[in-house]
Amino acid sequence: MKVQAIESHEQNDVQMEGADGARMRMLIGPNDGAGNFHMRHFEVKPGGYTPHHNHDYEHEILVLEGQGVAKSEQGDRPFSAGDVIFVPANEMHQFQNTGSAPLKFICLIPAPEDCSK
Amino acid sequence: MKVQAIESHEQNDVQMEGADGARMRMLIGPNDGAGNFHMRHFEVKPGGYTPHHNHDYEHEILVLEGQGVAKSEQGDRPFSAGDVIFVPANEMHQFQNTGSAPLKFICLIPAPEDCSK
Repeated sequence: MKVQAIESHEQNDVQMEGADGARMRMLIGPNDGAGNFHMRHFEVKPGGYTPHHNHDYEHEILVLEGQGVAKSEQGDRPFSAGDVIFVPANEMHQFQNTGSAPLKFICLIPAPEDCSK
Repeated sequence: MKVQAIESHEQNDVQMEGADGARMRMLIGPNDGAGNFHMRHFEVKPGGYTPHHNHDYEHEILVLEGQGVAKSEQGDRPFSAGDVIFVPANEMHQFQNTGSAPLKFICLIPAPEDCSK
């Protein structure tokens, strides 16, 4: 069993094209022997955003701090801490920090995947 | 895309033998079309606990509020809000609330599974 604080995980810039001001921590991933799905932590600066894209796997998200807007195929969806977001496979999506404080959320994806996504 | 607050999800008692004072919400599950893994929310009263058991699938956990002890095969592991816990498949585990406030955490499992676990 692993028990480890969020902050003790290494944090790196999200390098994907279309992202700005976003950093990621792999909380539970391949190095933990997690073979089915991975838990990542994202921190987005005020005004920052993740890429506007889609892919063939889903996202399961819990918003921990801050607020923002999710650009979805059904329009803009505001969200804030305590909200749960499910993005089905293949749906276009983007997460923008519209607040004045950091936006923090966890986002889980099936494994194996390119962990930078 | 689904965007929905934790609190707006139905909360039910955990009925499993060996649990006491624990309630669960299915945040992202079969009804959302989540085919790979499910996100559940647990709230455990002070003094309460989840079953001491094991099973052939892993847990990926993020502690949201409160504090407790995880009984693991390596001994008791204290934890608190902001901690990430990975329980590999087949490892014995139990989560006890050792604080004076509710213990709240999310726990993800592969799908399909008996969602009461």
